[in-house]
Amino acid sequence: MATRARIAVLGASGYTGAETLRLALGHPALEVRHLTAERQAGKPVAEVFPHLAGRGLPDLVKIADVPFDEVDAVVCCLPHGTTQEVVAALPGHLKVVDVSADFRLADPQVYAQTYGRAHAAPHLQAEAVYGLTEHVRDEVRATRLVANPGCYPTGPQLALKPLLHDQAIEPDGIVIDAKSGVSGAGRAAKESLLFTEVDEGLHAYGIGTHRHLPEIEQGLSEAAGEAVRVSFTPHLVPMSRGILATMYVRLAAGADRGTLEQVLRESYAGEPFVGVRPATRPPSTREVRGTNLALISVHDDRLHGHAVIVAVIDNLVKGAAGQALQNLNLMLGLDETAGLGASAVFP
Amino acid sequence: MATRARIAVLGASGYTGAETLRLALGHPALEVRHLTAERQAGKPVAEVFPHLAGRGLPDLVKIADVPFDEVDAVVCCLPHGTTQEVVAALPGHLKVVDVSADFRLADPQVYAQTYGRAHAAPHLQAEAVYGLTEHVRDEVRATRLVANPGCYPTGPQLALKPLLHDQAIEPDGIVIDAKSGVSGAGRAAKESLLFTEVDEGLHAYGIGTHRHLPEIEQGLSEAAGEAVRVSFTPHLVPMSRGILATMYVRLAAGADRGTLEQVLRESYAGEPFVGVRPATRPPSTREVRGTNLALISVHDDRLHGHAVIVAVIDNLVKGAAGQALQNLNLMLGLDETAGLGASAVFP
Amino acid sequence: MATRARIAVLGASGYTGAETLRLALGHPALEVRHLTAERQAGKPVAEVFPHLAGRGLPDLVKIADVPFDEVDAVVCCLPHGTTQEVVAALPGHLKVVDVSADFRLADPQVYAQTYGRAHAAPHLQAEAVYGLTEHVRDEVRATRLVANPGCYPTGPQLALKPLLHDQAIEPDGIVIDAKSGVSGAGRAAKESLLFTEVDEGLHAYGIGTHRHLPEIEQGLSEAAGEAVRVSFTPHLVPMSRGILATMYVRLAAGADRGTLEQVLRESYAGEPFVGVRPATRPPSTREVRGTNLALISVHDDRLHGHAVIVAVIDNLVKGAAGQALQNLNLMLGLDETAGLGASAVFP
Amino acid sequence: MATRARIAVLGASGYTGAETLRLALGHPALEVRHLTAERQAGKPVAEVFPHLAGRGLPDLVKIADVPFDEVDAVVCCLPHGTTQEVVAALPGHLKVVDVSADFRLADPQVYAQTYGRAHAAPHLQAEAVYGLTEHVRDEVRATRLVANPGCYPTGPQLALKPLLHDQAIEPDGIVIDAKSGVSGAGRAAKESLLFTEVDEGLHAYGIGTHRHLPEIEQGLSEAAGEAVRVSFTPHLVPMSRGILATMYVRLAAGADRGTLEQVLRESYAGEPFVGVRPATRPPSTREVRGTNLALISVHDDRLHGHAVIVAVIDNLVKGAAGQALQNLNLMLGLDETAGLGASAVFP
Repeated sequence: MATRARIAVLGASGYTGAETLRLALGHPALEVRHLTAERQAGKPVAEVFPHLAGRGLPDLVKIADVPFDEVDAVVCCLPHGTTQEVVAALPGHLKVVDVSADFRLADPQVYAQTYGRAHAAPHLQAEAVYGLTEHVRDEVRATRLVANPGCYPTGPQLALKPLLHDQAIEPDGIVIDAKSGVSGAGRAAKESLLFTEVDEGLHAYGIGTHRHLPEIEQGLSEAAGEAVRVSFTPHLVPMSRGILATMYVRLAAGADRGTLEQVLRESYAGEPFVGVRPATRPPSTREVRGTNLALISVHDDRLHGHAVIVAVIDNLVKGAAGQALQNLNLMLGLDETAGLGASAVFP
Repeated sequence: MATRARIAVLGASGYTGAETLRLALGHPALEVRHLTAERQAGKPVAEVFPHLAGRGLPDLVKIADVPFDEVDAVVCCLPHGTTQEVVAALPGHLKVVDVSADFRLADPQVYAQTYGRAHAAPHLQAEAVYGLTEHVRDEVRATRLVANPGCYPTGPQLALKPLLHDQAIEPDGIVIDAKSGVSGAGRAAKESLLFTEVDEGLHAYGIGTHRHLPEIEQGLSEAAGEAVRVSFTPHLVPMSRGILATMYVRLAAGADRGTLEQVLRESYAGEPFVGVRPATRPPSTREVRGTNLALISVHDDRLHGHAVIVAVIDNLVKGAAGQALQNLNLMLGLDETAGLGASAVFP
Repeated sequence: MATRARIAVLGASGYTGAETLRLALGHPALEVRHLTAERQAGKPVAEVFPHLAGRGLPDLVKIADVPFDEVDAVVCCLPHGTTQEVVAALPGHLKVVDVSADFRLADPQVYAQTYGRAHAAPHLQAEAVYGLTEHVRDEVRATRLVANPGCYPTGPQLALKPLLHDQAIEPDGIVIDAKSGVSGAGRAAKESLLFTEVDEGLHAYGIGTHRHLPEIEQGLSEAAGEAVRVSFTPHLVPMSRGILATMYVRLAAGADRGTLEQVLRESYAGEPFVGVRPATRPPSTREVRGTNLALISVHDDRLHGHAVIVAVIDNLVKGAAGQALQNLNLMLGLDETAGLGASAVFP
Repeated sequence: MATRARIAVLGASGYTGAETLRLALGHPALEVRHLTAERQAGKPVAEVFPHLAGRGLPDLVKIADVPFDEVDAVVCCLPHGTTQEVVAALPGHLKVVDVSADFRLADPQVYAQTYGRAHAAPHLQAEAVYGLTEHVRDEVRATRLVANPGCYPTGPQLALKPLLHDQAIEPDGIVIDAKSGVSGAGRAAKESLLFTEVDEGLHAYGIGTHRHLPEIEQGLSEAAGEAVRVSFTPHLVPMSRGILATMYVRLAAGADRGTLEQVLRESYAGEPFVGVRPATRPPSTREVRGTNLALISVHDDRLHGHAVIVAVIDNLVKGAAGQALQNLNLMLGLDETAGLGASAVFP
């Protein structure tokens, strides 16, 4: 085995950090050298995540105690708002994939509006590549800093960007109804996320105001070549993993369901992690559980001139840690699929 | 205690039957006299539903063995397609609430298209009242036969009919994204409904083609005074009970979110089973679990001139057995709320 | 309707409080006059429990602000350790059911050992009746203060006390393997109770050291007429409600499975809330969901001279709020079953 | 990459078959050549298991249509009772791991008693090695036919065999209380396995009579050097994967909790798939989800002279497909851990 790239995972006590570790442990060309968690520093990782016991991982330390000169790359899984300063302070030789929202919005003003504070590292923002991998491979290969897409924005962007770019759908009136598993909310101890509060029920939240909205619109606007506004309603579903987005779109003149499916098939032909399913078999989140896959299907709508599009991902993999390693693979000159080939865990 | 009305529940071995029994057992003015289940005839109900053991219910018999002259009213929980002949053969003195889909579509041609067979009792269809109770109280009081609304159609009709009737929203372009618990699919032993197939995941099905679509459109068209087509996509959620429908609508000229909320508040002022929640607190299906409530909220959409509406019910109660007893109460001259006042079971 | 007894629920922001309210709202002879929650004082109950919105409940206040002279009885749902002082300060005319653990251990030394602090109201402890209703009806009727049994202790005591009392089983070597839904852990925002931490998995905890152990042993010792020690292992199951206890016992000389079943059938003949199921149909927690029932079955063991006993309850009802109201009914001279007759909510 | 061993998976339409495929697809030295499913023959695997779409697997065929001369090894995932004839008819060059129960009971009489029919291939039974890998490595390496242990028997045997062998616990009076996820019941469409029947509840079944009992006793008796009878009660838990067994044992004279833990640590020192957890952190099934791990912990019991032992596995991996590939690795001369190194999927 050749030498492995050495990585540090910052913010390893959350679910995204744990998932990054799970994937990195199965990666043939990465070695996890350092793990950080400010409040848990000093503990073995098994105290925080028993399922990672016995895997040879280093103990948790503070960021200030990481010898970054021993490291080739960093995956940042810190809470949003805390990453800008941390990344700004990292040595220049490091490849960095930031899984937080801190570098996703290209326009610092939109960032400030969305997160209620000025961006602390606008020069890095200018440099950051928004890493929706299939659409920016060359840029990812060339950059030092990737802003990894959010969990909700990944599926809708993969599904809609090619359709907008090819003018197969109209850019206005897009409705995105998204349903997420609970791990998307993170590991903070909140009453609203208790098993008893979430189990056996369903609700919508952040209707029209969710922080992932500007990120989705940024991506769709770029593809459309004009400003796109969307309706976006997330829902919390009693399951741990998975996001399913149901999208309602207007067909462009001359387009029909088959046109859309064809555009998607061509856009993603040969892609290892994006699949187009036939309309007879809309994908379930169960088909992507634990994998880096995004699956998409296109359906006739009952409304004339409209179509329904379904996209599913595992929010912790393609929606976070998986896409992060996919990007890191490119940044490090590795095979893009390295460590990401697992089949779905079902049932 | 005054004399109780004597009822028979036909098709008592499915979930709707069981829920009718649960509610009837807590009803102060009903007495369950006969239960039928063709293939389970002869068994005590506890063999089919252990949770109903020890409640003094009669054994299951065949429909042919029910002495209908001892009965005042019938709740039909038979599979759709089998009810028309059964109801046609019932003695004329009986009040009948049919929970199947057999008498819901007023137009026999639409029935034939939707269910793939000619209606077997068109004369009864002409007589049947579609029992969305809050909108047809007087007709329900006066009729002998109620077609009880379907589980998916109940929430969207309650939410949208007043808005269409008052021209607060446009009748075209309505999108209904519905999410249902698994009990809506019934108790048939199907691989696709196994715990292992449903748990920890989510999928859409019947996109644009679900059999409840014509029923929804029938109700909305009536309210709008013109033919309404809607986009309707149901999803299966890993929970046993509850339906949440998220509806995307266009505001009529001059209307805003507040207008819609106001129309709904006025339409349902004083209603015991329909509540309008503030936009700050969209309802969860957990709030209606085990109850006959429908809860609705109206939200600003990110798309200008649009709004998002959320409606939740318990599919087995307001979406089936509860609304059935609500209708039966009216048909029997009882208090409409009798037996239906329980609070939600949470957590 | 006759005048209703007026109750105050102290500690109404937890699950036991909410369940007490759910049951009290359906009770024909109780009226909820006051609700307390120290940290949430001033809020409408709907902010804390949306599923109780619109039920006409009073707002939350502090205990110090309750005019206890307007109240006939109090249900205390405060955290254990905080109740002794509160109850000691209540006016003497009140009937009190304490759902916490504060008055359950008759021996103050055992209390001190178990909870790590001296009992603050030993005089009240001496007066308190341990309210396992079926075994202490007369005492409950006569007392002013009931210590309501804990959720884990209720099922095993109901199952084993008659068997020990009648010397049908040996008092030594009893093993109790208990499995509980998550609501038993309360509503505190703890990482270990997050949906994502609990879902799709199972674990044991507090093996041999759980705080309910002394309570179980106290009850069994009393029945046996000698000190009984038991093995007790609780497990956390991914469901919101329900406790199932599987008990492994040694048969007394001359006894067999049938003997045990017979003892239980005779002990609980005519009891409205305790049922004995045949060995062919061991009870599921689903059969008691939302009800005040305890169901028990007795099975042949593969080990000669042993038997297996299963007992199920809904931890929030028979294991807390339901048994509390059952006791309160007796204390107030009401029908013991008033407000507790609901059938199980299934599915 | 060197040439891969070519395998056929017989009975690929059940959960064990699917899990074998999931693991084989990630295995560096196996190639899945043929898949069978008698009733689904002719279909692509994606029609039966959508989560395996796009992985390059062959279509399903009938067993009779498999060219076994192109194959090096066979994993049999057929229903029990059907495997004996199939295996008897296989060419002699094949390595065979049978995941069914057909060859697990060494004594044909016990087989006949347990399964109600005479064994159809007693000569093969004599040859078969019962593949609890850690205890029979050399035999597995040398054999042509492995009977893969059942899901329930794996954990308890791994935990108890060393303790019995070393006489650290008494062989009589062992109680095994086991809790399983639903996938252990297979994929057959049964009413009792519907989501709505299983969700949010718990029940015991097969008390003292489960078919895995003789298999457990066979293993423990062998270790103890005398006939061992155990109490065994399985429970169905609302989760898809995982088995947790809680075992109640009597300590041998002179032994204490630490003795038992020490025996287990020594027995499994260096084992890649068996871990001993400290008493302060009893393992959860979540820690082994998707992995081939068995985790064990030993606890002081409240009963003097007793101990409590907990063991967890993923029933589909260490309890079926994972242990099958572990055995196959040995039979084929490969690294025992090949393809089995994944970390747990959590949350």
